[in-house]
Amino acid sequence: MFKQFTIQAPSVRIEAELQHKIDNKTKPLGALGELESIAFQLGKIQQTTTPDVSKPQMIIFAADHGVVAQGISLFPQEVTPQMVMNFLMGGAAVSVFCEQHNVPLRIVDVGVNAELEAHPLLGARKVAFSSQDFSQQAAMTSTQLEQALQAGVDEANLAIDKGVNLLMFGEMGIGNTCVSSCMMTALIGVSAEDSAGRGTGLDSAGVSHKARIIEQSLQRAEKETGQLMSDWSAQTLAEQVGGFEILAMAGAMLQSAQRQTVFVVDGFICSVALLFAQKVAPDVREYAVFAHQSNEKAHKMLLSHLKAEPILSLDLRLGEGSGAILAYPLIQSACAFLNKMASFESAGVTDSK
Amino acid sequence: MFKQFTIQAPSVRIEAELQHKIDNKTKPLGALGELESIAFQLGKIQQTTTPDVSKPQMIIFAADHGVVAQGISLFPQEVTPQMVMNFLMGGAAVSVFCEQHNVPLRIVDVGVNAELEAHPLLGARKVAFSSQDFSQQAAMTSTQLEQALQAGVDEANLAIDKGVNLLMFGEMGIGNTCVSSCMMTALIGVSAEDSAGRGTGLDSAGVSHKARIIEQSLQRAEKETGQLMSDWSAQTLAEQVGGFEILAMAGAMLQSAQRQTVFVVDGFICSVALLFAQKVAPDVREYAVFAHQSNEKAHKMLLSHLKAEPILSLDLRLGEGSGAILAYPLIQSACAFLNKMASFESAGVTDSK
Repeated sequence: MFKQFTIQAPSVRIEAELQHKIDNKTKPLGALGELESIAFQLGKIQQTTTPDVSKPQMIIFAADHGVVAQGISLFPQEVTPQMVMNFLMGGAAVSVFCEQHNVPLRIVDVGVNAELEAHPLLGARKVAFSSQDFSQQAAMTSTQLEQALQAGVDEANLAIDKGVNLLMFGEMGIGNTCVSSCMMTALIGVSAEDSAGRGTGLDSAGVSHKARIIEQSLQRAEKETGQLMSDWSAQTLAEQVGGFEILAMAGAMLQSAQRQTVFVVDGFICSVALLFAQKVAPDVREYAVFAHQSNEKAHKMLLSHLKAEPILSLDLRLGEGSGAILAYPLIQSACAFLNKMASFESAGVTDSK
Repeated sequence: MFKQFTIQAPSVRIEAELQHKIDNKTKPLGALGELESIAFQLGKIQQTTTPDVSKPQMIIFAADHGVVAQGISLFPQEVTPQMVMNFLMGGAAVSVFCEQHNVPLRIVDVGVNAELEAHPLLGARKVAFSSQDFSQQAAMTSTQLEQALQAGVDEANLAIDKGVNLLMFGEMGIGNTCVSSCMMTALIGVSAEDSAGRGTGLDSAGVSHKARIIEQSLQRAEKETGQLMSDWSAQTLAEQVGGFEILAMAGAMLQSAQRQTVFVVDGFICSVALLFAQKVAPDVREYAVFAHQSNEKAHKMLLSHLKAEPILSLDLRLGEGSGAILAYPLIQSACAFLNKMASFESAGVTDSK
């Protein structure tokens, strides 16, 4: 099911031309810091010295998780569909910020444990009413995994076919920091102590309990697959301890990269989706702009593993794409300086000695 | 000349009401991180639970510095008027970002070493053609200091009288990181080694030379005033080692605070202006939102001294208000979530257990 992705890194041919243009803007060399790196990356992805991110789209994937039966979240599962309604009605943080920046918002149900009424902003791609409790059995079947991935691929295609040139992804699903921590441990071998965090606000006893559930789940899965988790294929890992919205995001990221489209990585859960996508196709990383470093402790470790330099560090821990949309005006600024600032020559400003 | 400022900290009466409103938005407690602190501060300054920053204004103060004769900058002095022209023509970074966010930009000449032609965006408040070389004599007279401060006060009044509810300040002046480092050393006693940085791109030999010039200038001034710099009044300090645009910014900050108007602090030079303003009236600090931590090494130390948590940390080192305008959409987001997000009650979302 992963053979459809034949992602290639952007060509390096344009690098010198891009760097020259950046260095000749009326500012000391390097003085726009990380904005210069972002401008360089956008230009390289789009293979142009005039990159364009003026047609953005936010897509939030939502699903529920069987593992919430183990008491790993502070909020009850009913909050997932309630928050989907809140997104649709414009009352959530991401709704408010998308409105502020005039970014279209779409919510995609890939596994919410409730019947959701049709709505113009809602994509109905439900794989199941929640995944299974992976502390007891595999989270999903191979068919379900394929459906979740394909939901992401189809959503990316739908947007890109409409001319979208920057995709932002978010997620909603009570329990999904636990699922993400479990996937992170399975993907890069860090301990559950290190990958488990506060989520929506657990105390230390709650975090320890979450870490124990993650350890037990991974032991269960190693026994069931007869393989050490370090030997798992992407497919096995996803089936055993994945989550529908996380895998749909990974599918959407892979398809964005496949189509040379920049995408923005939100917080911890979104970063784990990228980590999984990287296991499928390492060059997907080249198309990712990292929005922020969250307050979730494992996120810092994961960003360092990904060699990512996030734009923001505001102690956010909300998910739902909120960090991605907050970073969007800064990505626009990176484009704007490259496209609109004067050069030393055009402005008649003397360059440094 | 400082008696006109009778700044008081905003009343704490509204704090409980503000915190209650923030905590009942549909998000885990504290999940919007620093945006919550900013929303709280804006609400407290404006004494309302529906703060408004929809009428912003960027003001850039420009001036030249006699101390450039000592070879402390990589760029020649002619760049100051050239960059003023670049601001006016829309080609500078701050011009591009102000256009992006629809923020009116005004440039105020308080001491550029050139005759500048009239322009609709240019405020003509020249105190002198550059300050004196403070390594040899006092930077300015008492009358000049008063004029520079008053230029800032008048600009703040002009904006606030028009309904501006958020002021952003920037600066342009070849040599002004050296002046700022010198003022910082005089204000809080750190060594010139610690306060001197790369500016627009000096190498280590250049930074060491700058530090020596700062030390010599302060020794010259201590001798001339017959006082240790730790005993200097704000007036003595400004006359001896100040810069016109830095003191104009300090005046504008003091007047903003005097009129209960939030203002945004840009990078290192702007932070030194605030440090000076604090010496005049400590409560001015309450009205300041810190935009970013720059790449200039002394800025981190200064922000820590000011107990400031800047919004961005993008390795910027451009000045000209560029960091302030880049942070503006995030300040808007802080207002937006407080004004527009649903509460748990209004959205029918279950709160945590």
